Amino acid sequence: MLLGRVFLMSLMLEARKGVSSQVVKQLAEQENVSEEKLLRLIADGRVIVLEQGERVVGIGESLSTKVNANIGTSSDFPEVAPELAKLRAAEESGADTVMDLSTGGDLDANLSSIVSSSSVPVGTVPVYSAVVKARSKGKAFTEMSEDDFLGAVENHIKLGAQFLTVHCAILQEGARLSRSRVVRVVSRGGCFVDAWMRANKKENPYFTNYDYLLELCKEKDVCLSLGDALRPGALADADDDAMLHELRTQSGLVKRAIEAGVGTIVEGPGHMPMDTIVENVKLQKKLCHNVPYYVLGPLVTDVAPGYDHISGAIGGAIAAAAGVDFLCYVTPSEHLALPAEQDVRDGVYASRIAAHAADIVKRGDSKWDLEMSKARGKLDWDKQFDLALNPNRAKEVKKKRNSSSKACSMCGEYCAYKISSGE
Amino acid sequence: MLLGRVFLMSLMLEARKGVSSQVVKQLAEQENVSEEKLLRLIADGRVIVLEQGERVVGIGESLSTKVNANIGTSSDFPEVAPELAKLRAAEESGADTVMDLSTGGDLDANLSSIVSSSSVPVGTVPVYSAVVKARSKGKAFTEMSEDDFLGAVENHIKLGAQFLTVHCAILQEGARLSRSRVVRVVSRGGCFVDAWMRANKKENPYFTNYDYLLELCKEKDVCLSLGDALRPGALADADDDAMLHELRTQSGLVKRAIEAGVGTIVEGPGHMPMDTIVENVKLQKKLCHNVPYYVLGPLVTDVAPGYDHISGAIGGAIAAAAGVDFLCYVTPSEHLALPAEQDVRDGVYASRIAAHAADIVKRGDSKWDLEMSKARGKLDWDKQFDLALNPNRAKEVKKKRNSSSKACSMCGEYCAYKISSGE
Repeated sequence: MLLGRVFLMSLMLEARKGVSSQVVKQLAEQENVSEEKLLRLIADGRVIVLEQGERVVGIGESLSTKVNANIGTSSDFPEVAPELAKLRAAEESGADTVMDLSTGGDLDANLSSIVSSSSVPVGTVPVYSAVVKARSKGKAFTEMSEDDFLGAVENHIKLGAQFLTVHCAILQEGARLSRSRVVRVVSRGGCFVDAWMRANKKENPYFTNYDYLLELCKEKDVCLSLGDALRPGALADADDDAMLHELRTQSGLVKRAIEAGVGTIVEGPGHMPMDTIVENVKLQKKLCHNVPYYVLGPLVTDVAPGYDHISGAIGGAIAAAAGVDFLCYVTPSEHLALPAEQDVRDGVYASRIAAHAADIVKRGDSKWDLEMSKARGKLDWDKQFDLALNPNRAKEVKKKRNSSSKACSMCGEYCAYKISSGE
Repeated sequence: MLLGRVFLMSLMLEARKGVSSQVVKQLAEQENVSEEKLLRLIADGRVIVLEQGERVVGIGESLSTKVNANIGTSSDFPEVAPELAKLRAAEESGADTVMDLSTGGDLDANLSSIVSSSSVPVGTVPVYSAVVKARSKGKAFTEMSEDDFLGAVENHIKLGAQFLTVHCAILQEGARLSRSRVVRVVSRGGCFVDAWMRANKKENPYFTNYDYLLELCKEKDVCLSLGDALRPGALADADDDAMLHELRTQSGLVKRAIEAGVGTIVEGPGHMPMDTIVENVKLQKKLCHNVPYYVLGPLVTDVAPGYDHISGAIGGAIAAAAGVDFLCYVTPSEHLALPAEQDVRDGVYASRIAAHAADIVKRGDSKWDLEMSKARGKLDWDKQFDLALNPNRAKEVKKKRNSSSKACSMCGEYCAYKISSGE
């Protein structure tokens, strides 16, 4: 976590003093932005930096759009081995980060295994661990103490998580506003906080102890991802009062984090009609002081279970082009089952298409596309495979129904590339 | 083709006289628009109507976005039986039309089989047939006569095609402008016309004989789809002079078709950066007198072979929300191979997601989504499956990794729907 750092303080605070480091230099080179500009963005909280071993991942303004893959056990599938296979699938497919969302088996052991096996930064949702531990002691999670909530955060930092989703911004008032919804709370972490507040008639412990949370994060320079417990889980609930209440609360919390020198990410929807996405991104960026914006999808229709990676790619591309910095993948299993290994691959690639399509627009990152089109026009298959988002998949599809000609089996001898180049 | 018609004239000319018919009534009901409004849209050429047996399909302004699936043999896969299986797959997946793009085997027999088996309107690209027939007689296609080009159109109308892609709008000047491109011509039909013009030093025979073409279409009231031979096939070529030259030519041809009472569709890209799509749709609609706009994709990146149905869904959703009326599907095999049956299913569902996401925005078609979200909130699985875009796929994904709880295996006992509803 402190690779190449000059001072034992957060990268944001270092940047504010104008102090650079090997990490910043490496990131500037990776992202093709100047070190000076990057330092300014980090100082302002507009870029956050995650590290895992040799890997440095920057998320935020002016940088390429990043993709997160969720993995982790559930009560129905508590074994960690398949999750480690999914971690490898996520890495191989090009995910920039993974989140361990385990809720089954030995959670601490799962997280330790995932952190020690991962080449990319690992995020978590600590409240899951608090809830599962309470239940393992025979308690209802609504009986947890405030210390249980906070202890889980401390524990995940200790275990090596680099960014932590904490649902600090759902308040009793927001929860009340959500009562008129079609689907009230769809965030798993959020629903625990919501139910605890209701049962205990108390405000959200992550909100009331927010300064302490910031201290915990600052100490190890981990990044706080402000979860959106009240994200719309149905198109009909998009942009409603409950969501906007939470967004305003996130706004204030971001300001306090920046003052404390703690990097934050703000989490967003969810399910949204296509025409509401751009405005949502602009509003979130404005209210949340331009810190990185992280969305789950968004899904542009509710009716496509089994294909939600595609709904999510549509929403994610629009969102990222409008300024979203970080896409949480959605897999074909969304709304139906815990994803399997192939779902992880499909989900990461779908999100990477969205991210890259957006980067073409917001960063002018079209060199890759130009190279591919040149190779395509020349029917240079080796180069096309090399340049393909997923070379193995491209090869497999071509080979399965190969052509006797130099072209592909769609057109064979009537290939437009051949004919129009006068071959 | 004349089901319920009062006069032996095109539906557009009937509509101009204010004469309705059973077809118009049925379509108005299907699309939930008034018969009066629909008649006006048909009269202006803003809506075209295709019929196949009992099926009536309307394409254009104020109607839901339609999806076409391309099927057809190639020289490497000349058998018709797999194409008939693909036709069934397209129908089952909910394609509104199919196009037979066969270039292998006995083309007339293929088209007859497809037309007689199809429950949805069938479109074709007649020039393929002209070229394949010329070659079967040992001639280079550049040796074809103008009559060969036109005879293929007449033959496809006779065989029951209901809409015909004809590349009328690529002229010698447009072809010249395309020389500076990364990939010059990617349209298969377009490259035949282009190569013929070059070899014969003559103008496009479909352009010079356009009045005759209109007569052929008018006689049987088939719809002319003005192909875009110069559609960009690489992001780098989008919106270039060659494309705009063809668009201006399409504009003039649409005007002549409307005057003649022939329904037209205008075909568009292709490959386009996300941020150019909306402007392209507005320009095309304006220049082409608001007749239906039909796009292939558009693909928002060149680098994702194997996943082009996802790139196409992103572009298609943005295009359709901006006013595109008709999406040609793109399959995972695009740029790599002739699609197989599963590709057809994947392609149709991806395009249907794009079409529906857009219809939510442009038509307010969100009732389906609302019903799904209500079922989801109640964990009513039977209803969720019934309402799913593809019920079989949704069931299969859930079942493969089922939960011992009432929820799905993602969250099991920690399901947010259960917890937040207080169960």
